Amino acid sequence: MTGTELLRWLLGHPLAKVVAVASSGGERSGVSIAELSPALAGRCDLICEAPDPERLAKRCDVVFLALPHTVSMSMVPRLLAAGTRVIDLSADYRLKDTALFQRWYGTLHLDPSHLKESVYGLPELYRERIRQAALVANPGCYPTSVLLGLAPLVRERLVAPGEPIMVDAKSGVTGAGRKVAVEYLFAEINENLRPYKVDGHQHTPEIEQELSVIAAKDGLGPLVFVPHLIPMNRGLLSTMYVRLRKPVDAEALAQLYHRQYAAEPFVRVKPVGKMPQTQESLGTNYCDIGVAVRKQPPMAIVVSAIDNLAKGAATQAIHNMNLMFGLAETAGLV
Amino acid sequence: MTGTELLRWLLGHPLAKVVAVASSGGERSGVSIAELSPALAGRCDLICEAPDPERLAKRCDVVFLALPHTVSMSMVPRLLAAGTRVIDLSADYRLKDTALFQRWYGTLHLDPSHLKESVYGLPELYRERIRQAALVANPGCYPTSVLLGLAPLVRERLVAPGEPIMVDAKSGVTGAGRKVAVEYLFAEINENLRPYKVDGHQHTPEIEQELSVIAAKDGLGPLVFVPHLIPMNRGLLSTMYVRLRKPVDAEALAQLYHRQYAAEPFVRVKPVGKMPQTQESLGTNYCDIGVAVRKQPPMAIVVSAIDNLAKGAATQAIHNMNLMFGLAETAGLV
Amino acid sequence: MTGTELLRWLLGHPLAKVVAVASSGGERSGVSIAELSPALAGRCDLICEAPDPERLAKRCDVVFLALPHTVSMSMVPRLLAAGTRVIDLSADYRLKDTALFQRWYGTLHLDPSHLKESVYGLPELYRERIRQAALVANPGCYPTSVLLGLAPLVRERLVAPGEPIMVDAKSGVTGAGRKVAVEYLFAEINENLRPYKVDGHQHTPEIEQELSVIAAKDGLGPLVFVPHLIPMNRGLLSTMYVRLRKPVDAEALAQLYHRQYAAEPFVRVKPVGKMPQTQESLGTNYCDIGVAVRKQPPMAIVVSAIDNLAKGAATQAIHNMNLMFGLAETAGLV
Amino acid sequence: MTGTELLRWLLGHPLAKVVAVASSGGERSGVSIAELSPALAGRCDLICEAPDPERLAKRCDVVFLALPHTVSMSMVPRLLAAGTRVIDLSADYRLKDTALFQRWYGTLHLDPSHLKESVYGLPELYRERIRQAALVANPGCYPTSVLLGLAPLVRERLVAPGEPIMVDAKSGVTGAGRKVAVEYLFAEINENLRPYKVDGHQHTPEIEQELSVIAAKDGLGPLVFVPHLIPMNRGLLSTMYVRLRKPVDAEALAQLYHRQYAAEPFVRVKPVGKMPQTQESLGTNYCDIGVAVRKQPPMAIVVSAIDNLAKGAATQAIHNMNLMFGLAETAGLV
Repeated sequence: MTGTELLRWLLGHPLAKVVAVASSGGERSGVSIAELSPALAGRCDLICEAPDPERLAKRCDVVFLALPHTVSMSMVPRLLAAGTRVIDLSADYRLKDTALFQRWYGTLHLDPSHLKESVYGLPELYRERIRQAALVANPGCYPTSVLLGLAPLVRERLVAPGEPIMVDAKSGVTGAGRKVAVEYLFAEINENLRPYKVDGHQHTPEIEQELSVIAAKDGLGPLVFVPHLIPMNRGLLSTMYVRLRKPVDAEALAQLYHRQYAAEPFVRVKPVGKMPQTQESLGTNYCDIGVAVRKQPPMAIVVSAIDNLAKGAATQAIHNMNLMFGLAETAGLV
Repeated sequence: MTGTELLRWLLGHPLAKVVAVASSGGERSGVSIAELSPALAGRCDLICEAPDPERLAKRCDVVFLALPHTVSMSMVPRLLAAGTRVIDLSADYRLKDTALFQRWYGTLHLDPSHLKESVYGLPELYRERIRQAALVANPGCYPTSVLLGLAPLVRERLVAPGEPIMVDAKSGVTGAGRKVAVEYLFAEINENLRPYKVDGHQHTPEIEQELSVIAAKDGLGPLVFVPHLIPMNRGLLSTMYVRLRKPVDAEALAQLYHRQYAAEPFVRVKPVGKMPQTQESLGTNYCDIGVAVRKQPPMAIVVSAIDNLAKGAATQAIHNMNLMFGLAETAGLV
Repeated sequence: MTGTELLRWLLGHPLAKVVAVASSGGERSGVSIAELSPALAGRCDLICEAPDPERLAKRCDVVFLALPHTVSMSMVPRLLAAGTRVIDLSADYRLKDTALFQRWYGTLHLDPSHLKESVYGLPELYRERIRQAALVANPGCYPTSVLLGLAPLVRERLVAPGEPIMVDAKSGVTGAGRKVAVEYLFAEINENLRPYKVDGHQHTPEIEQELSVIAAKDGLGPLVFVPHLIPMNRGLLSTMYVRLRKPVDAEALAQLYHRQYAAEPFVRVKPVGKMPQTQESLGTNYCDIGVAVRKQPPMAIVVSAIDNLAKGAATQAIHNMNLMFGLAETAGLV
Repeated sequence: MTGTELLRWLLGHPLAKVVAVASSGGERSGVSIAELSPALAGRCDLICEAPDPERLAKRCDVVFLALPHTVSMSMVPRLLAAGTRVIDLSADYRLKDTALFQRWYGTLHLDPSHLKESVYGLPELYRERIRQAALVANPGCYPTSVLLGLAPLVRERLVAPGEPIMVDAKSGVTGAGRKVAVEYLFAEINENLRPYKVDGHQHTPEIEQELSVIAAKDGLGPLVFVPHLIPMNRGLLSTMYVRLRKPVDAEALAQLYHRQYAAEPFVRVKPVGKMPQTQESLGTNYCDIGVAVRKQPPMAIVVSAIDNLAKGAATQAIHNMNLMFGLAETAGLV
């Protein structure tokens, strides 16, 4: 699903040319994209290839990998060795700690050396390093929304040390890709609402890792992350409850966010009293953020919304590509 | 899905007692209903049994079969032989012509003798025979809505002979049961709309068979049946385009329908100018019907709506049970 | 919307008889229920009356009020004076503190004397008092789910004193009734998700009041309540983040909930590792609860789900009626 | 709603520049677009103007009118007089017969002279005339899907003369714009399905007019048009039942469609056995068409799908603009 979304955006990118599409196991080799994704008929006449890293590298400046977790890392070394750059949309190069990777993804990391060099592809945090990167680990959808929502508070050292940060996240079902299982059937999702992987989602360590980087020596409390499945195709909204060191005025807090994101082309901060809704960023690379506060105890309630398949995956990958090749950051994205 | 719906209604029936539940292949034997259907926790403490016809027959006045097509007919003979009555919600005993059955369901009919005795369980057409029946073939959801919509026109010999009858039907996805396939995933159904099995749905011969019975010697034209999948859980609406022998006044036509269904507890006819919508019959055994006309050429547009899982399956089965056991027709249904 | 839902349930209640229906402003007097709610055609042939308290009281053992907030309290005194009992589904008699009522509902309370005598209609908390009550204040949908979710923790004095309790709530749109406004149009809700009234919803003081009653002398921290609008018709789920005095084992916590609700016919506690989803309680009077824990810092995550129009309004009102008239608690509800 | 959609597309058009936005009654003058449509924040910093035709004409090569029906025709004469070209998305210049206009829209046509010169903006039918047009009447969403579906049959003189053509159409709710009425509330549309304006929709004469133009001297039968409201935001699918002069082979018919649309950039014909679904053209200017046939009586079943807000309104308008200004037809549209 992410792959199709990415392809759709790339086909409309004025400065990119899609020269090859390959399917992971090769089982779709020889099938046309138009047949696999009838929505792309008339827009793309490529035929799906077998995933031959060297053949791909020869023809491509950059290869996007939209593969299942743990499959990417067997392709990446050969792609990099063959001289192309890689944007990996899987989780394989996001966690810097291989022990953590093994615990959450249930398998040994096969490529620790490239893991070290890989750059976490959140442009708002790593813009300069992404420009130079050979390998970009495109963030997960939940981490994108949570990190953009919390970064200003952490950077300003406003978060009360040691206090747990509660993240109540809600996502449309495309976050789960096209997994064919009873629980993703229409009748099980529609007119239904449920939490899942309560306090045990694999995106938790990814968020914690990046918050720690921002916090530096500050002792951040643990993250309590509870995702929910919402009866909609796309859209993701995180509601974050953060204890602060001291009371902050709502207007001052909104100003702080405005300042920190003033130069960012894809983060929009709401005026006090307004909150994001997912529909406003649907089909875009925007992250919308709103804030509210409590005096006693000092708290911030931060809400951030993105399109999980766009900013949470495909368009963020293209943003990264734009940075890596010195293109306008917004090229192909508005 | 039909089985769970049926169980839910039976548990609320004031005169029925559910004494046993069995799973088709026996693979769920020993598992509690509350675990299989958490919605029924606290309402039903039965444990799923292996499907032993003789054991079931010994304890039950009637057995409902909500089995996949072609599985029912291997159970029915043993159930009937053991002395219980059967309401079969599958298609196995609906088509009287075994050749037709074989063509549409791809397998030989294994039980032609009981097929002959079985009664088509549409109470509005076969009330008296259902009362006496040992085996009732509960109608499909599309046929229920179409037959109730067309019966008055056919009975009054208003349909232009030989002219095709167009039925454009729309159904929520539970009509497909809990089939686990890519095309029934939430993201493939939600915000989407599609026809399927255009002019080739297995319910077509069932409708034709029953229309012929009503038409008797009248030469009805062919049925053109095009079903569509609608992004909703439940509800089914058929829009029928029927050429008439001669122009009919809208008011007169509505009156005709009112008269024909005056004694029916579960058919509601709309006044001229109003049309059914599926929400109004949701979770009920009602079929709602509205009519409009054209003078030139003489035509009727008939719209009928039901809840596909209720009147189209579970509650119609209970209506049949009520008839078979001399209970009030509406018992447990309002 | 609540009124129609209530009527639907009462029509199916084996021991209740609906003898009159009145519309609030009287503007629908003389119109049949079947016309106002075509879904009830064939089930109810009553004509809507003008709201004459004395005439209603004369014929009714109990009157249900499903009126806008602030309208009920002008009817209640006359109904009680005329000798009938009242179940009020509005917010008018829920807050015991008239100053609080005035702050949140923007108007002076007109009937403080009956307010004092009224009983908060959550059977799980006030069963015995409800039996004797002349006036029952039926709880709001959010408070129902939150109070049932938190009561066991508060009663056992497990909640860390002074620490804020975060409630992230999600509701289908029927919670808003049939309010005709741009933000409730289909296209504004469907494929969208948004928080609203962040930390400022009028149900907050109702929850705080009742938690204080349970907590007695325990110093509960403030409630942080953030509701969200979900693209579904019905269903409400609250995710609650609660700091505890000391770590609790998940299994022990689930057992605690099981024990406290063992005798309750309409509360179901999930085994450890399972969480509620709204679909399982849809169209029922059940509240489903699941729990998870954190060791460090000691925390419970409690999730509770109800049908906002049923347990959150109409069926809870019927549960109250059953108690008030000495009927079986589950009569008409399963 | 159409206006916002149009603006979104124009902002992404590489060769267009939006220099002014005006609101119809002027009641939004002075309000920023970002405030009116938060989804456009960061993409458009225009302020809504009063609708001054001369001021607009002075600065614009073309003005798009997304006004309510009957309002456009009071603006168009002044815009044309001031020397700008106009693409009108309302119905005001679609019906060539002013008597017909008056009957269906309930008001006298105020601008019959420009009506005569206006060009019906379906590029597949009027490409050359659109290039030269000063005033283009952008087609309705239903007519777009129906005309593209039927044109090949009519052009080839395959339609049986005099026989009614049945069009069963289904549309997402944005077709109704942002009309604030009970019947468009989320809870009235979601999990619901209904026909509306059965055989009396105002798009009927528009379709008949254009079919007549194609048919020329052929005597086409009457159009029976029944639209249905589907619980989805966007997408429109028409299922058309057409009697033919003589039986046609499915493969031959599909080939006929392929040939007729071979040069069209935005019409895609499905291979035999496949049918369109709305999701495949969502957010695009494509119209997808599939065909099936019946031998006896000779019939074609044609299914066409579009995005009602895109090909059915906004992107078709841009396609027209591209033609009028000699741009690549696909500019800004893929």
